[in-house]
Order: sequence, then C-alpha cells, then structure tokens
Amino acid sequence: MRIITISREFGSGGREVGKRLADELGFAYYDREIITEIAKNVKMDEEYISHVLEKGVFNAIPLTFGHTFSYLPKSAVTATDIYSQQQKVITQLSSKGDCIIVGQNADILLRDRNPFKVFVYADMKAKIDRCRSRQNPGENMTDREIEKMIKQIDRARATGYDMISDTSWGDMKSYNLCVNTTGTEIKNLIAPIAQYALSWFENK
Amino acid sequence: MRIITISREFGSGGREVGKRLADELGFAYYDREIITEIAKNVKMDEEYISHVLEKGVFNAIPLTFGHTFSYLPKSAVTATDIYSQQQKVITQLSSKGDCIIVGQNADILLRDRNPFKVFVYADMKAKIDRCRSRQNPGENMTDREIEKMIKQIDRARATGYDMISDTSWGDMKSYNLCVNTTGTEIKNLIAPIAQYALSWFENK
Repeated sequence: MRIITISREFGSGGREVGKRLADELGFAYYDREIITEIAKNVKMDEEYISHVLEKGVFNAIPLTFGHTFSYLPKSAVTATDIYSQQQKVITQLSSKGDCIIVGQNADILLRDRNPFKVFVYADMKAKIDRCRSRQNPGENMTDREIEKMIKQIDRARATGYDMISDTSWGDMKSYNLCVNTTGTEIKNLIAPIAQYALSWFENK
Repeated sequence: MRIITISREFGSGGREVGKRLADELGFAYYDREIITEIAKNVKMDEEYISHVLEKGVFNAIPLTFGHTFSYLPKSAVTATDIYSQQQKVITQLSSKGDCIIVGQNADILLRDRNPFKVFVYADMKAKIDRCRSRQNPGENMTDREIEKMIKQIDRARATGYDMISDTSWGDMKSYNLCVNTTGTEIKNLIAPIAQYALSWFENK
C-alpha cells in the first residue's frame, strides 16, 4: 500500500497538488472525508472536529468564552477521543489502497507505514495572491489581514504537529520532498512529482 | 539559457545529484572548474581559493597562526578580488549555455538570471554513512568526528551564503525544490528531478 502525505503552508496550493496528484496516479484522495467520518463516529459537529484537529482543543474555544471551559462538550467525548478517532479513521482509510492524504498530520499518524511525505510551500506574497483569488465576493480582507490569517493557521498547524512528532512541522527534515509553488502553475509540476514518488516507492 | 544550481548539505550526495542531472539533461556541469579558473586568473593556489570561498577568509586562516593576519597573501590579491573573480567566472561559464552549478553560492550570484534552485539534504545518519563509505583507506574517523566535520562545513557554507543573501542557506524558502536523499538511491531520483526542472523552466 502506497501512501503519500501532503503537508502544506496555508495558501501554497497544497490541496491542489494533492488532488491533481491523486488524479495523475489513480490514488484515492482523502482530506475533508476524514473529518466527516470522525464527526459521524463521535456524533459531533464537523466544524468543531475540524477546529479541534487543526487548531488544538484550546485554540478551538472561541475567545468570547474567556478562559472558562464552558464551551467544551459536556458529553463523554473528549479531545483525546477525537484524536484517537482521527488515528483510527486515517489508518482505516489508508488500508483500503494507495492513497493521498492532505493535512491531518497523516505523515506522523501513519509513520509506521512509511509514507512518502511531501511539503508544499510558497513565498508569502504568492500565498496572499492565491488566497485573494479564492476570496468569496464581498470579502474584502487587506493583504495584512490575509497574511495574519495565514500565519495564524500555520502556527496552529505547527503546534498540533509538534505535539505528536519529534520532528518539526515545516522543517525540511520532516519530509522527503519540499515543493515551492511560487511563480509556477501547479498543474505542470504534477507529472514529475508523481514520477518522483513512484521512484521513491520502488526504491525503498 | 537554463541554469540549475545545486546547494547541498555536506554528505547528502548533492554533487552526485548535480553530475547525474547534467548527464540526464545534457547540460554542462561546473563545480571544481570554477575554483581552477579563479586560481588561474589571480595566480593563487586552488586550495587557498577554495578555503576562502567555502569557509570565508577568516575561517581559512589556520588557527596556528593565532589572530594575526600574517598568513594572508601580501600581494595585491584580496579576498574581495577572489569574490569578484568568482562572480565573473560563474557569470561567464553560465553564459556559454545550459548548465548545472554545484555550490559556489551560484544561486545568489546568478539570481538575476533566475536559476532553478535545488537543495539536497539528508538525515545526519545517512550523511555520516555516506561520508564513511567514501573515506580513504587508513582514515579512521569516528561517527562523532564525521558528524562534527559535517556540521563545521555546513556552518561555514551557511555563513558564506548568508553574508551575500537576504535569504538563509538551508531554508527551504531559498530554493525551488528540496530533495531528501535519505534511504534512496540517488540515480533513481534523477529523471523526475530533471522533468521537474524542465517543467519549471517552460512554466516561468
């Protein structure tokens, strides 16, 4: 079973790399599906699951609730349950066949399965431009606001990753291949990345 | 004119990547030739030129000479001359046609020519093993000694790079593609890296 994990800076086009790579290779693609599955299993809102997993349980508490934990679910479902569900769902999905998983710390959760680990990144300006081109009509964030959001999201990703890994999020040593999408059309990079991954799998 | 620059951690196989990539693409390959050319132009010893360029002029002074500068050439040739010769030689060679340049801070010296910038790296253990397999008979360095040497060389490379760049040596943001050679046979990675570079050139 071949597993490719894609970690990515927000706005760098990592998800596009993942989807296109899955099409190119005929691998299954998992991303949001994992959240949906966990939400179903623990009978909780997808949005909340997503916040806990992407931002860590404490960051997921809206600040308006102050420093009390009144927002945390009163049920028996704890953050730990959500994390172990994540492990379970990712392990199950990746056992079905060759796949690509974007985010979700899948590179760490599946480290025993020796995935091919890609990191996708870009210059801040390129990331801001990419975010802007995807804004909904009516959204009018300034470049500064977008940059702040990008940094916040990546900081949260790093925090969540570093909690469960002995390597660091965004440190090239944690990955097999790091791809800078600045100034490129992602679609043109897919065939060589796919070929690189296949060589790596044959090789190991 | 297409220029590929290879920066690399010592012991990661960056030079092998460069040479094989040059063969694969039919590009010229420059590495030691640059030193030879500079040495000829300034009429100095290749070894000394190499030290100045790789380690910076102050690190190149043998410590036994203490903190005086008695070792520095008394002639009119200064470190600045060597650096400007490096710029000149690299610019000349890279103007002859498509090429690959390993090291020499060529990615920075040729930044106006928009080269495709590769960084080659590996885990410390893999680098130690690679260095050991290339030891001359009779050399008996311990793993610790090899690790110390690797770190010293890379620190010197970083210092030299950071002096002339506003990005950092070994920081993925400074490169277009970062390749981890740990646990792989370099020869199997060459075709996809070549394809990636060609796509990038077509694309820009």
